[in-house]
Amino acid sequence: MSESLYVVKIGGNVIDNPEACARFLKDFSELTASRILVHGGGKVATQMASRLQIETQMVDGRRITDKAMLDVVTMVYGGLVNKNLVAQLQASACNAIGLTGADGGIIRSVKRPVKTIDYGFVGDIEAVNDFQINALLSSKLVPVIAPITYSNEGLLLNTNADTMASATAVAMAKSAEVKLIYCFEKKGVLSNPEDDASVIPLLTPETYASYKSTGAINKGMIPKLDNAFAALEQGVAQVIICHADDLKQAVSGSAGTTLQLK
Amino acid sequence: MSESLYVVKIGGNVIDNPEACARFLKDFSELTASRILVHGGGKVATQMASRLQIETQMVDGRRITDKAMLDVVTMVYGGLVNKNLVAQLQASACNAIGLTGADGGIIRSVKRPVKTIDYGFVGDIEAVNDFQINALLSSKLVPVIAPITYSNEGLLLNTNADTMASATAVAMAKSAEVKLIYCFEKKGVLSNPEDDASVIPLLTPETYASYKSTGAINKGMIPKLDNAFAALEQGVAQVIICHADDLKQAVSGSAGTTLQLK
Repeated sequence: MSESLYVVKIGGNVIDNPEACARFLKDFSELTASRILVHGGGKVATQMASRLQIETQMVDGRRITDKAMLDVVTMVYGGLVNKNLVAQLQASACNAIGLTGADGGIIRSVKRPVKTIDYGFVGDIEAVNDFQINALLSSKLVPVIAPITYSNEGLLLNTNADTMASATAVAMAKSAEVKLIYCFEKKGVLSNPEDDASVIPLLTPETYASYKSTGAINKGMIPKLDNAFAALEQGVAQVIICHADDLKQAVSGSAGTTLQLK
Repeated sequence: MSESLYVVKIGGNVIDNPEACARFLKDFSELTASRILVHGGGKVATQMASRLQIETQMVDGRRITDKAMLDVVTMVYGGLVNKNLVAQLQASACNAIGLTGADGGIIRSVKRPVKTIDYGFVGDIEAVNDFQINALLSSKLVPVIAPITYSNEGLLLNTNADTMASATAVAMAKSAEVKLIYCFEKKGVLSNPEDDASVIPLLTPETYASYKSTGAINKGMIPKLDNAFAALEQGVAQVIICHADDLKQAVSGSAGTTLQLK
């Protein structure tokens, strides 16, 4: 466990709001540790699909990525969103390099097998190339990763950005002390969903179990937190859940919710 | 002058033809030297603009890149085209990494100043970061560069792919023996434009002057060849002009037209 590394995920709500995004990027560019940014897509892909008259396919309430939608996602996430984030970071003297999982072969996946639902061009992550990512970090580059992976067959595959962030954090934990930071629209994990001031500063498996048993942490957050604790069990040092405006305070432990094994 | 480096440019005619593109990528993936691919855009951006009902702005017969068209170019060249090339190369065990000029700050430009025509979001190259490109090549990565650069202000800018290829070749010539290879739809520079078999195998400044004086090399080719000789004068070892199907033969000198200072 040598150097410290931040793996930061920002969601679509930040991407969709230019002012919030600019504030976030400024804070991100001012961090001094090695860092990786993983971004979601936001509404731009859905809007673009609608302008191109590509219908969003739904099966049993789940969105399907057909070839036309894959092209939209590749254009919007891998091109428009990713390159604008990179150019803005470069203008703030942060040496960003925009990547999908295909670039440098950093995140490889397999097309999701068809069971009851055919999700189409969706990837389930198989391997994160931490060696290649470390080579980029050693060149003082800051990877900015779009939610697209690739398969051995040369397919591009739509992939969940939260999962890409946690898989990357777990792989990098072999060689660095990794903090995985999820930035979203709330101040952290709340003990009372109605009260934005009720941020829980620290969650361990024990306190998490207790908040679940009282119902204070409810179903929406449970899969997210289960995944976060799974990342900790696989070697990630800390998971932090915070508001996108609070990145700098959150990495120093003075904002958001920190999850640790003990 | 140490290692040998190929800077290969493919144009839109290859991008637009999936079979030709797959053949080219297979050959490119089998080269063993360090190499960089620079790609043009092809018709996809124009088609996408038309589907999005974005009008192509023309002033005095020149295409203008307004903000809507810049977004299309960023999506299509930086996303759709670039990432599909990368995924196909990865499937052929070529460790491609897709980049615009903004990524790693490799190619910076300035927004073209308005004189008689405002070209909009078009970049004139100011600096190629050969140090950063060398760092990627040292990691055994194969840069695949889309025709987009960035400015100090964080703008993305549409940029001519031929110019990006020659500027990259010139910058890399400081540290490598560079062959700059333009792949297009002809077998090479022809002494008789009506006869595809009339490829001129070798052009020096002297023979070029003589072909020009007889009119055998005519206006369409002259600016391209002038630019190629300018690259040679700035340190590039050879420029090769060949058919996209002949890449492997061309690098060994048995196809296409080779340009050298002597």
